[in-house]
Amino acid sequence: MKFWQRAQNAGFKIPELPTESRERTFPDTNCVILDGKLVASLIADQCKELGKGRKQPKLAAILAGEDPASQVYVGSKGKSFANVGFASETILIPSSEASSDKLIETIEKLNADVSVSGILLQLPLPNKMDEAAITARIKREKDVDGFLAANMGLLAIGNFKDTFLACTPFGVMVLLAAYGINPAGKNMVVVGRSNIVGKPMALLGISADSTVTVAHSRTKNLPEICRNADILIAAVGKRALITKEFVKPGSVVIDVGIHRDENGKISGDVAADVRYIASALTPVPGGVGPLTIAMLTMNTALAAWN
Amino acid sequence: MKFWQRAQNAGFKIPELPTESRERTFPDTNCVILDGKLVASLIADQCKELGKGRKQPKLAAILAGEDPASQVYVGSKGKSFANVGFASETILIPSSEASSDKLIETIEKLNADVSVSGILLQLPLPNKMDEAAITARIKREKDVDGFLAANMGLLAIGNFKDTFLACTPFGVMVLLAAYGINPAGKNMVVVGRSNIVGKPMALLGISADSTVTVAHSRTKNLPEICRNADILIAAVGKRALITKEFVKPGSVVIDVGIHRDENGKISGDVAADVRYIASALTPVPGGVGPLTIAMLTMNTALAAWN
Repeated sequence: MKFWQRAQNAGFKIPELPTESRERTFPDTNCVILDGKLVASLIADQCKELGKGRKQPKLAAILAGEDPASQVYVGSKGKSFANVGFASETILIPSSEASSDKLIETIEKLNADVSVSGILLQLPLPNKMDEAAITARIKREKDVDGFLAANMGLLAIGNFKDTFLACTPFGVMVLLAAYGINPAGKNMVVVGRSNIVGKPMALLGISADSTVTVAHSRTKNLPEICRNADILIAAVGKRALITKEFVKPGSVVIDVGIHRDENGKISGDVAADVRYIASALTPVPGGVGPLTIAMLTMNTALAAWN
Repeated sequence: MKFWQRAQNAGFKIPELPTESRERTFPDTNCVILDGKLVASLIADQCKELGKGRKQPKLAAILAGEDPASQVYVGSKGKSFANVGFASETILIPSSEASSDKLIETIEKLNADVSVSGILLQLPLPNKMDEAAITARIKREKDVDGFLAANMGLLAIGNFKDTFLACTPFGVMVLLAAYGINPAGKNMVVVGRSNIVGKPMALLGISADSTVTVAHSRTKNLPEICRNADILIAAVGKRALITKEFVKPGSVVIDVGIHRDENGKISGDVAADVRYIASALTPVPGGVGPLTIAMLTMNTALAAWN
């Protein structure tokens, strides 16, 4: 598997799932639960195990401003790193001090710091800063989010031994592999074309021999296009947009969306009725979310080790 | 038009075609001839005109080995540059002297030479050298072929003011624009997933709001998938593979293939019968081929001017 090359070079293996996990279905359905939380925990175990006797990976997260969701994200990332014995530090920059110059200076310092394996610049940035221009200052070799043009370009040309893959689509590929779902020769439809999910997901699908379609807000006949999918990736950012009318019976559906309603209940881009016709589906929560953090941990290990 | 941003910043305009050219059809059909040669000549005129009083762009082409087709290509590129008043030189390295070290040394010298705007490393390289590793040594700012991971990555993340677009897909986008064919909301199917045509073409299609499908040798039901296309890009490298069974009536077909038969006759990936059902089609020769060279000329001008 091409996407796994760099991980493999560092000693990681595609997690093997016990049969009962592979066959667990949503209640009253034949739809297999693609348990991202489980796969994430197995990746975490490998991080811990492979870390023995190796350089301790360290993540430096830059948190500029006071966005509450960002504070939660950065906090949970730090916890995941601690759980596997990796180091992490958070550099807090209050909005009042958060200028482009200040952020670039911070990044340059972390670029030069040999104790730092990976740098994460938490988005969104406050004060209407140019996020792309500031992100671009992160050293390619420490871009564990895989957001840099240089890493996306390495993915595009198929250099899997050097690139950092964006964590969410990387996690989706691992999940499919762990459940024995081979994308080769299948129709993969990616709904959404963001730089951090849709586009790298499409490039990963192409490299795995899928016939890949990228659909988005300007797509006509979206339900019809989605119904062509053997593997449907919903990364559209609209709650429950993908209903059963969008899904071919027996297909595999991956829900990248995370939405929180007024009661704090979390759900995704995929509606509840899809489980009655898909053959496998990621739950939300417990699907792609935990995997994204696991892949960030792994990318930081790869930055430290190879 | 996003893909045109860098060209626009340098003063280039999408070529305007006279009505009679836009309406010219293949004999006995209603299928418009997408005249790449004409659009290429209008791009060349702009290179000449905009070059007045500006720094003279210069291409340095490295030709390693004695491949006859490569000699022809490099020769015709040189001629196109001379025609618009741009400089070009060819550095010949015979097979007997063509080592990785020698090529990298040559590239480093050209990277540092301020008189050289663009560097072209003609492929294939002899002596089983690592083409990707050697190409990667070209300075991003002189990569007028747009082959580097760094430039492909800028395209992927949508930074159109800095990237160099790969010449063939760049030419296809210009051709569509010159004929008033807007890809937004249309289904674009790209057959072929090479780094120099298929993948950058797909990324350009996505940025132009097409719903893009990338098909390839592992695709099942290729004719059916192609028949979904409003714009079909054939970059498959097999003579006449795309027959009328692959084409939706009224669609636009772009033929990127170039094949020469035993009698020297040139034809493409698209069979002759397609013109009876497509609404527009590029001829081979005289379609995408001349445009590719025109875009190389333009990219070298962009390297010199902005």
